[in-house]
Amino acid sequence: MTESLTRFISIEGGEGAGKSTLIRGLVRHFADLGLPLLQTREPGGTALGDGLRAMLLDPAQPPVHPEAELLMMFASRAQLVREVIRPALAAGQWVLCDRYVDASFAYQGAGRGQPADRIEGLREWVCGDTMPALTLLLDLPVDIGRARAAGRGEADRIEAEGNGFFERVQAVYRQRAADEPQRFQLIDASAPPDEVLARAVAALAPLLAIGA
Amino acid sequence: MTESLTRFISIEGGEGAGKSTLIRGLVRHFADLGLPLLQTREPGGTALGDGLRAMLLDPAQPPVHPEAELLMMFASRAQLVREVIRPALAAGQWVLCDRYVDASFAYQGAGRGQPADRIEGLREWVCGDTMPALTLLLDLPVDIGRARAAGRGEADRIEAEGNGFFERVQAVYRQRAADEPQRFQLIDASAPPDEVLARAVAALAPLLAIGA
Repeated sequence: MTESLTRFISIEGGEGAGKSTLIRGLVRHFADLGLPLLQTREPGGTALGDGLRAMLLDPAQPPVHPEAELLMMFASRAQLVREVIRPALAAGQWVLCDRYVDASFAYQGAGRGQPADRIEGLREWVCGDTMPALTLLLDLPVDIGRARAAGRGEADRIEAEGNGFFERVQAVYRQRAADEPQRFQLIDASAPPDEVLARAVAALAPLLAIGA
Repeated sequence: MTESLTRFISIEGGEGAGKSTLIRGLVRHFADLGLPLLQTREPGGTALGDGLRAMLLDPAQPPVHPEAELLMMFASRAQLVREVIRPALAAGQWVLCDRYVDASFAYQGAGRGQPADRIEGLREWVCGDTMPALTLLLDLPVDIGRARAAGRGEADRIEAEGNGFFERVQAVYRQRAADEPQRFQLIDASAPPDEVLARAVAALAPLLAIGA
């Protein structure tokens, strides 16, 4: 892994796990340290990706077939990696991405039934070495997360899925964290937000020592 | 190949080769014969695909990276095959598609440099057995086709490419026709439209005898 890649961090987690709150806290943390941070998200992060995101999440559209959904997620990712993430890393910036390729294994794989080896083939081609040095996985019981997310108003097309979908998503996230302990940091997202942020900052500290 | 798949016909060809004129003629031919025909196109043919088409062809958008373009083409195709083509074939309709998977080998492969084995992997997964029984390839020297197409007004993002792009596209179309002579019918598109239609109808005749 090249030095610049240690500056890439992804945040993963199910609905209502507190990703947005944690990201706001991390953005402040990087600002306090005076470190240049590019904040982005998936799907989206580019004009093309935002267009794909709108098509994917719109509950008013006819159902998107799982194969098309997986291909659109990777199309958004291919554009984001090339237009945004690689140039930012090459310029010495830190990159904080709200969801990345692990989400495809969780949502399109476990959730929608697309085979993991197919997703891995796409990952290798589309992402290559552009993988996070650290992935913070916010882990929360599905029913608690969904109750939190329900307070936000109308559900998008993925949020409208049933509990079984989100339990499969969580199981794959946990499995990936167990398989790659050097990359993943699993954080109990039922803790208060300040504590979640403190744990994320602690997980980041070794990277900051290398990458700063 | 199952009987229903013999009713799937694709039309391929470069810019200005006369695909639209030929398709209008074939639609009349099927109507004259009283055969149910579903006419569709790529990219597009579904609400999702039409949205992807607009994003891909808009010359005002930032450049779409070749990997993202290929994935969006196959996302549109995955949706079209499952939402439109397979149900129509299962219902006994004929399907006439303005471009199909050969176009990805020509445009995203030869044109944009994406490897043929990657495209073949996507084809096998996304299309499977849903392949045309007959592909009519309208073949025309690149400069003549482009001069014809130029009369239509503002170029879209693909039409705005240089001659080298379209020469690579044509070479791959011809190679695929040579590799699969049982599926492809190459038609000299410099002939008058009536003659192009007559050749297409002659190529169709054996299929009509089987599939009608």
